[in-house]
Amino acid sequence: MSPAADRFPGDAAEPGRAAVVLLSGGLDSATCLALARAAGYACHALSVDYGQRHRAELKAARRVAASLGAVSHRVIRIDLGAIGGSALTDPSIPVPEAPTQGIPATYVPARNTTLLSLSLGLAEALELREIFIGVNAVDYSGYPDCRPEFIAAFEDLANLATRAGVEGRRFRIRAPLLTMTKAEIIGVGTACRLDYSLTVSCYQADADGRACGVCDSCRIRRAGFDAAGLPDPTRYRTDAPA
Amino acid sequence: MSPAADRFPGDAAEPGRAAVVLLSGGLDSATCLALARAAGYACHALSVDYGQRHRAELKAARRVAASLGAVSHRVIRIDLGAIGGSALTDPSIPVPEAPTQGIPATYVPARNTTLLSLSLGLAEALELREIFIGVNAVDYSGYPDCRPEFIAAFEDLANLATRAGVEGRRFRIRAPLLTMTKAEIIGVGTACRLDYSLTVSCYQADADGRACGVCDSCRIRRAGFDAAGLPDPTRYRTDAPA
Repeated sequence: MSPAADRFPGDAAEPGRAAVVLLSGGLDSATCLALARAAGYACHALSVDYGQRHRAELKAARRVAASLGAVSHRVIRIDLGAIGGSALTDPSIPVPEAPTQGIPATYVPARNTTLLSLSLGLAEALELREIFIGVNAVDYSGYPDCRPEFIAAFEDLANLATRAGVEGRRFRIRAPLLTMTKAEIIGVGTACRLDYSLTVSCYQADADGRACGVCDSCRIRRAGFDAAGLPDPTRYRTDAPA
Repeated sequence: MSPAADRFPGDAAEPGRAAVVLLSGGLDSATCLALARAAGYACHALSVDYGQRHRAELKAARRVAASLGAVSHRVIRIDLGAIGGSALTDPSIPVPEAPTQGIPATYVPARNTTLLSLSLGLAEALELREIFIGVNAVDYSGYPDCRPEFIAAFEDLANLATRAGVEGRRFRIRAPLLTMTKAEIIGVGTACRLDYSLTVSCYQADADGRACGVCDSCRIRRAGFDAAGLPDPTRYRTDAPA
């Protein structure tokens, strides 16, 4: 058996392509990394520890980065609790357990703007020009910073904000999941060898990463596996509804 | 003597106006805060501890926020050292002590994008719509993220990125120093009661905030006081050139 058999399928395809990939440890960002790897990118994963409630996500990010063969994995700490305003960073705001109208309490003010800013800084420091982010504007929670016009505006900003942009090298913000349904995302990720049991989507997972089954994120995820006709490998807490 | 005499001149002018003000503790951001206060804004100052070498700046930010009567002052910690790529965050890259061509080594990748993202999150959490930033595109170090087109692009992004933007409330990024010379900035700040001896601009100030007198930032600052015809109150290290 040749050593090549140990490589990820995309590794041989296009040598020299590299990107920064934002990796939360949830289903979408893990799929985004799997897709970038399958497409032949050497991937520098970036996770941000922003004081989120679901810290099991960060452990999941480490497992996913290792299993998909990321070249590097950085975790940047930033205390968004000092800003507050979200059920994910302020312990006094409860996580909704039923569908809500409009933008839900789990929205973190300017989160994706901040995450993309940090990934832009890393891309510039590493002299890379592509950034992958697993945002999705179909089966999602209605956050404003998951829309295609937001991604396009950030790409424009990136090219004004940076030394590379001034020097004429273009940054690209890649959001390959943007228009996929959750079922399509799960299908693509499965084809790209992602083991979804490594990922954690739940907003209130326990320390072992077991999911509540009732928050917005759990409901969307579970419906995605149903729609994809694939078994749901999510590890649920014993008190989660069947 | 009436209690009003203790207030800042702008306090009585336009009650109810409030803004987030990015405050590094350097000359420009301190002037920006003084100007916003004089214009009648209640100001929520935001400083970011991003692992910068010149930590004396953060102490200066506290002094300036207190002396100008900011309503609040938050310091958010974020480890940009994990990204590197700048003389200000990577101890292995020296601070230039002579003028350089192009964008200097003190450029921090995507710094203002990250700072504005954090201030946007705070503004949204506090339900404020105005953000002041002391960027300047005249007597400056040539950083790409100090240009007017960058500020305009961030304002557009802010209105796509946020709940407030979706709901039709506009954010405004205010950069009142953008087209001023350093001498003009110092003149305005002095008129707005700013005590510049509280501020620290030096990239390699000592722990007491005393300036080196030779880095890019020191040179621009000193020339500004000269051009304004005002005495330079900067506290220099004993080894700084006269």
